[in-house]
Amino acid sequence: MPKESIVPEVVILRLPLYIRALSQMLSEGQTVISSNELGNRLQVTPAQIRKDLSYFGRFGKQGRGYKIESLIEELTKILGLNRQWDSCIVGVGRLGKAIINYPGFVPEGFKIIAAFDNDPSKIGENVNEIEILSIKKIKSTVEKKNIKIAILAVPASIAQDVITSLVDTKIKAILNYAPIAPKVPDTLILRNIDPVLSLQSMTYYLD
Amino acid sequence: MPKESIVPEVVILRLPLYIRALSQMLSEGQTVISSNELGNRLQVTPAQIRKDLSYFGRFGKQGRGYKIESLIEELTKILGLNRQWDSCIVGVGRLGKAIINYPGFVPEGFKIIAAFDNDPSKIGENVNEIEILSIKKIKSTVEKKNIKIAILAVPASIAQDVITSLVDTKIKAILNYAPIAPKVPDTLILRNIDPVLSLQSMTYYLD
Repeated sequence: MPKESIVPEVVILRLPLYIRALSQMLSEGQTVISSNELGNRLQVTPAQIRKDLSYFGRFGKQGRGYKIESLIEELTKILGLNRQWDSCIVGVGRLGKAIINYPGFVPEGFKIIAAFDNDPSKIGENVNEIEILSIKKIKSTVEKKNIKIAILAVPASIAQDVITSLVDTKIKAILNYAPIAPKVPDTLILRNIDPVLSLQSMTYYLD
Repeated sequence: MPKESIVPEVVILRLPLYIRALSQMLSEGQTVISSNELGNRLQVTPAQIRKDLSYFGRFGKQGRGYKIESLIEELTKILGLNRQWDSCIVGVGRLGKAIINYPGFVPEGFKIIAAFDNDPSKIGENVNEIEILSIKKIKSTVEKKNIKIAILAVPASIAQDVITSLVDTKIKAILNYAPIAPKVPDTLILRNIDPVLSLQSMTYYLD
């Protein structure tokens, strides 16, 4: 992991969920919330929420709850979500195209500004106003455009090679859609989006 | 969870990963594997692997490792993956269409055989030979076709209502793509596919 940090990763993983729930409450007109209420909403204990937040200093006053708007603002800042993150997509097949085109895949604050593929017939083509470049240009392009995040939508068979090749670039975070359990060096952070595993772990409960 | 079970859910969540790694090894020509080697490959401890497998009886002999092919077969049977699971998709917007069309979203053994939407202009349309039906027909259709798995690709704003409405049907497992943290009754099992949360939990580590 690129940042030495005393905050456990599970805590970092929960913060976006807190932001999401708080934003929803704010949009419903609520302005203050207790850790009890937030815990109920997210099915975690209030103690867990208080402990998670305590890593980042004091929010809210004992017995008065949290001011939702300022808590959202603080958490957004902590996660570095108060700025735009330019990202690139690697692999522009059907899945890659869907990711570029479907707004739900990429949240506000993340913008796909470059796309790469190894298929010569695709290079030069435009998808949603983004030109597909040769994968050979990834290193120089992400350096020039200051891109640290790559969304990987390549076939499973080449995903590990692509991930390994990214080590040598400015890419530091990968959102991987390929159904593999990749080996990732400590200098990269990776999250897998894996509907296959998710489906396969539910059938156990269906007789 | 529909099945009373002494096997912890985290164990069930790991089994598909084991199958994936073992299948890859088998395709590379390997026939036997030790828990050490499998652990290395998956970045879990060998003790963890032995403990996980011990929930389901004895596999392999002390000091001789596991026979890959029969271990795959056993795990496949345990997870109920040795049969086809007919599934349906709810929400046939851009994302829903991508899921129907892109083979990587739905693994072997799962087949989307029905699709539902609430947009009258879409009903009757075909996507990859699947007719889009009115969401109002979901209860009777899943009952008739014996569908227990729903893939949810509806907008976040209506996802909770759709999930709640499924409680009353034969659907027992939901793969949810809507970016919400839904409340789910005990009778349903749900997995969230959430690229938004994944992206938002990486930026913390990028300065």
